[in-house]
Amino acid sequence: MTVAIYSIGTELTRGEIVNTNASWLAAELTAIGFEVTEAVTVDDDPARIVAALKRLAAAHQVVVATGGLGPTTDDLTSEAVAQALGVPVVRDAASLEAIRQRFQSIGRVMSPSNEKQADFPQGATVLANPVGSAPGFSVLLGGCRAFFMPGVPSEMKRMFADHIVPAIARLAPRITFQRRLKTFGLPESVVGEKLAGIEAAYPGVILGYRAHFPEIEVKVLATAASPEAARALADTAASEVRNRLAEVIYGEGNDTFPQVVGSMLAARGFRLAVAESCTGGLLGHLLTSEPASEYFFADAVTYANEAKTILLGVSEDDLREHGAVSPVVAAAMAEGVRNRCNVDIGVAITGVAGPSGGTPEKPVGLVYWAVAHPGGETIVQKRVFPGDRRQVQMFAAFAALSLVRAVLLGKRG
Amino acid sequence: MTVAIYSIGTELTRGEIVNTNASWLAAELTAIGFEVTEAVTVDDDPARIVAALKRLAAAHQVVVATGGLGPTTDDLTSEAVAQALGVPVVRDAASLEAIRQRFQSIGRVMSPSNEKQADFPQGATVLANPVGSAPGFSVLLGGCRAFFMPGVPSEMKRMFADHIVPAIARLAPRITFQRRLKTFGLPESVVGEKLAGIEAAYPGVILGYRAHFPEIEVKVLATAASPEAARALADTAASEVRNRLAEVIYGEGNDTFPQVVGSMLAARGFRLAVAESCTGGLLGHLLTSEPASEYFFADAVTYANEAKTILLGVSEDDLREHGAVSPVVAAAMAEGVRNRCNVDIGVAITGVAGPSGGTPEKPVGLVYWAVAHPGGETIVQKRVFPGDRRQVQMFAAFAALSLVRAVLLGKRG
Repeated sequence: MTVAIYSIGTELTRGEIVNTNASWLAAELTAIGFEVTEAVTVDDDPARIVAALKRLAAAHQVVVATGGLGPTTDDLTSEAVAQALGVPVVRDAASLEAIRQRFQSIGRVMSPSNEKQADFPQGATVLANPVGSAPGFSVLLGGCRAFFMPGVPSEMKRMFADHIVPAIARLAPRITFQRRLKTFGLPESVVGEKLAGIEAAYPGVILGYRAHFPEIEVKVLATAASPEAARALADTAASEVRNRLAEVIYGEGNDTFPQVVGSMLAARGFRLAVAESCTGGLLGHLLTSEPASEYFFADAVTYANEAKTILLGVSEDDLREHGAVSPVVAAAMAEGVRNRCNVDIGVAITGVAGPSGGTPEKPVGLVYWAVAHPGGETIVQKRVFPGDRRQVQMFAAFAALSLVRAVLLGKRG
Repeated sequence: MTVAIYSIGTELTRGEIVNTNASWLAAELTAIGFEVTEAVTVDDDPARIVAALKRLAAAHQVVVATGGLGPTTDDLTSEAVAQALGVPVVRDAASLEAIRQRFQSIGRVMSPSNEKQADFPQGATVLANPVGSAPGFSVLLGGCRAFFMPGVPSEMKRMFADHIVPAIARLAPRITFQRRLKTFGLPESVVGEKLAGIEAAYPGVILGYRAHFPEIEVKVLATAASPEAARALADTAASEVRNRLAEVIYGEGNDTFPQVVGSMLAARGFRLAVAESCTGGLLGHLLTSEPASEYFFADAVTYANEAKTILLGVSEDDLREHGAVSPVVAAAMAEGVRNRCNVDIGVAITGVAGPSGGTPEKPVGLVYWAVAHPGGETIVQKRVFPGDRRQVQMFAAFAALSLVRAVLLGKRG
């Protein structure tokens, strides 16, 4: 039971975007026990879309396709699939109405070009898209079940989970179980070294590493004769991974570092206030990407020095004497935001994100972060982070969160 | 003259890494005038590697392949290519010596498994790898010139520049010039409708659309007989696109919306302060993703209601009477941050990002944003944005920036 991933779009063959859909689908399909042997991308050319589809359908039992379902003239997937099947394209009244309703619900009038998003090859099964305007569809091409989804990643992921996994899960040729352990704090090479020998010690287990900057995810994929045995094997190997990596592992599955630290704060009834300089709001943004009102009070992004004085009460003397990028100012920012906001925990970040602004004493990448908390003195840490501006900012935000987590775990302060 | 990109490796078909090599090669090949019509990835299976290679060589004039040249048993590219050619693999003494020297130069002993990296299909042209241990090679398969490079991105990029561009550049079939116009404010379907007929009016021009949420990029690709003619054609068609879309176009190429608005502020000597609620720091983060100290003063992320009072001076009465998500509080936040920070422009966002917290009067997606500025009364706008929490936040941040831009352009207030 081999599976092919099929990506349609000239934006991919011209390299304008990276095909993250294909790798995401490959990982998901592998995790549920399928063997993905081929991934094909073609441009928006009708003849090539048809030819590649026919070839893939002849060689695989399942084809999972993305792209070409939008409202513009270069969105050709429905027509091409109809041609491959030798059937006409027909407009689906229910889908048309759903698209119209979707536009209405967001207070917009549906444009005529969106109507073609309700066109499908005759006989296709329509797959609803609750998070976008383009429905997907599936067809049988000879013995191959082919699924077509929009290329927008959030829509594709939702459709895959809602419609495709339920339709194909029982066809998977292997019985596998996967656990995904999320880590922050060690580079991939060190994580790999610490886990050396686990695959040999647990036959049937494959470890995979996925760098999702600045985190490393460790995937423990176990194959066995029964679902129970696969799960037990994955659990046993995951325990060994946990033993070796200890606190470097902060969560599992879809956990995110900000969300895990936020949940720890909420569980203790602590409120958090943030003060940022070089990270410019990134830490606040990361924390509020998921609902955060249980614990998140405010974030004072005091980018200019005067802002640190106005909004946080950092003394002008400290700024003049030590500079904004200093342990003194980092501590004053954390304490200032904690006191002004009258919350339990104050966390602050100040540094040189670059690309310019570095000096021999304070190079690009130098960041101080501080946590003011109820259990003792304010803690300040520093590092010179490698990478470009975005990487320095992301490292700094994660490092500050990591110190909050350490304080909550009772490991520091 | 079509080109195929061929990626070999089970780490790709299992989704353990994202295939950034394929998108990088696609962009490079497109930029030098080639048409990449297909990109194929296969796992480390000898029969599948051979079959896909034969098919690609029959359909394309050039194949650019990566992966499978390492020292381990699952690195099978040389053997597979030899099989496709019907020739034996032969060890290249010069390459073996170069690999040995490379290990010596970094103070390591070459392991026996590295010897196979000097094995190539008989008759292949070896491509030196100055930055890694695996040389590449090229062969002729019928009428197709096929190149094989290591999968390590830094080694691949160097080999592509050193060996492949010089070998194929003169074969490029098209003389092209591309302009990329960046838009915000209209959905893709409406952008497409407004540009209907341009391709017909300017033969040789192809329009492409790329949704990069919440923006739409319009690509104007012109093909002509000379570089000058291609550029002139692209310029003419781009002018027509600009006429039709007017202010919806905010920039070109690698411009970003936050950076363009930031540059407008800096050019006028204006300083900006931000007040955010439901967007949680996203607008500050977007503005400070690039250096912003010329214009960006501070961002008060007042997530809790009390924070709006403490940091911005929003009156408790207004919050009680109108609620945090109201035009009154949006205006008070924008004016509060402008006054406290003593800057030219204050911009504020307050809304219901969801997924919970909506009511019939204030549904999820309802957002108010406001701009306080020196030219007149504070402007407040509102919309109910579609999508999930992240989309609502991103739409809201861009809408607020768009109002700042309109004020600077003299279009509002």
